[in-house]
Amino acid sequence: MWRKDLTVEESKRLARENTKDIIACGFDVTKTFIFSDFGYNEPAFRENVAEISKRVTLNQVIGIFGFSGEDNIGKIAFPPVQAAPSFPSSFPHLFPGMDNLRCLIPCAIDQDPYFRMARDVAPRLGYNKPALIESSFFPALQGFSGKMSASDPSSAIYLTDTAKDIKEKINSALSGGQKLSVEQKEHGANLEVDVPFKYLSFFLNDDSELEHIRKEYGEPGGRIQSGGVKKRLTEVLTEIVERHRKARAAVTEEMVDAFMDARPLPSMLE
Amino acid sequence: MWRKDLTVEESKRLARENTKDIIACGFDVTKTFIFSDFGYNEPAFRENVAEISKRVTLNQVIGIFGFSGEDNIGKIAFPPVQAAPSFPSSFPHLFPGMDNLRCLIPCAIDQDPYFRMARDVAPRLGYNKPALIESSFFPALQGFSGKMSASDPSSAIYLTDTAKDIKEKINSALSGGQKLSVEQKEHGANLEVDVPFKYLSFFLNDDSELEHIRKEYGEPGGRIQSGGVKKRLTEVLTEIVERHRKARAAVTEEMVDAFMDARPLPSMLE
Repeated sequence: MWRKDLTVEESKRLARENTKDIIACGFDVTKTFIFSDFGYNEPAFRENVAEISKRVTLNQVIGIFGFSGEDNIGKIAFPPVQAAPSFPSSFPHLFPGMDNLRCLIPCAIDQDPYFRMARDVAPRLGYNKPALIESSFFPALQGFSGKMSASDPSSAIYLTDTAKDIKEKINSALSGGQKLSVEQKEHGANLEVDVPFKYLSFFLNDDSELEHIRKEYGEPGGRIQSGGVKKRLTEVLTEIVERHRKARAAVTEEMVDAFMDARPLPSMLE
Repeated sequence: MWRKDLTVEESKRLARENTKDIIACGFDVTKTFIFSDFGYNEPAFRENVAEISKRVTLNQVIGIFGFSGEDNIGKIAFPPVQAAPSFPSSFPHLFPGMDNLRCLIPCAIDQDPYFRMARDVAPRLGYNKPALIESSFFPALQGFSGKMSASDPSSAIYLTDTAKDIKEKINSALSGGQKLSVEQKEHGANLEVDVPFKYLSFFLNDDSELEHIRKEYGEPGGRIQSGGVKKRLTEVLTEIVERHRKARAAVTEEMVDAFMDARPLPSMLE
């Protein structure tokens, strides 16, 4: 709905590609149902979309999402489609007669408006409000004030990047280290603006190693310089991306079909 | 979407009741597919709804339908749902590979805006524009300036009315006949405002009888008075309603299921 040139066919293809990335993260097919809005045609889901749509006014969605008169009406119809999975009755094959289950939604913070709307509507439908765990965005490689953007490949590391891509991108990322090594020795790095250190704090599983780097890089008198942090991050990310690439290569179209099949999952709630 | 108190369950029930009335009119199950928007969950239909929604702006639907900020967004999402059946690709079980078929839509004139929108969008989707046959509304029994209304049972004859209801309603309908029989003899009736005569022009199959009534009632010196027209209309409508009642009573839930089943209809185009 947002990208004028995006066809239905391409949307459906992208949904399957995204599904492969999710599966590659290690989800269990006996406990996971992945659906796309075009692929999941359960009447109860559509009925919840209609029930939500009835209870949200045009003024409300304009207030929440900032739509204008030039926006297409697919965008305006979409928020209830995004909100409907908050309610167990949208999935009768998974939660038959369990309308009182509470839904927990892990999502990025930009999805918050949809589920605030869902929380607002829920009691009027006789449903529980969904709860959310919201993740913040990674900063762009160019710095915390920038935005990762699909139109600027240098702003982010992709799961499709080669080891060489990763190394080059991280080397040009915004560092909080001092220009001269004497200054670095004297002041330590400014970790508040240091993107590679921030990324390490997300991706390095070993907390004691991270603490070691924080001290030796961020504090005066430390022995680690910006290049060392970038090198360590390059190693960590290269390994993660390589592991994901291997896992993703093992995902077949049949596995995608299996995850996306609307079937009962009795062990989901165990 | 329009009636705040109407539930999804009740909408689905009403759709089946309407279907019974349609079947009772004598449609052929080997050539007829009846669907409701909740019941027909074909992905190709939903995809056409999305393709149309993408190509209509909020300003356009506000211009066409007069929506306001207080309207619920289900109303705003609805026009593409109403427009999508204009395109054969919405019905792959009926018209596989026949995307170039032209669609003819018989409808009442109030539905025109939806299909004007469909005609506008059609070429941008690579589809033919649908054509329309638009029927005008019957006047209300109280006169041509009034509106038939579900909230005013005396404004219309219902298929559920008894013979007594019909007789009483027609007797109190607005007549174009003169108050006094001498005036009637001198001037004839004013057929322009005479609701019973207008109804007869719709329902009386015998054109020569209608012409006879037009002359003997509408022209000076005629021998038919207002009461005679009302009596004839009462006979005609009572017979139609009675016939419909019998035909409708013979419609079973299984017949409704059969008409609403999305199945191939190879003889539909013969």
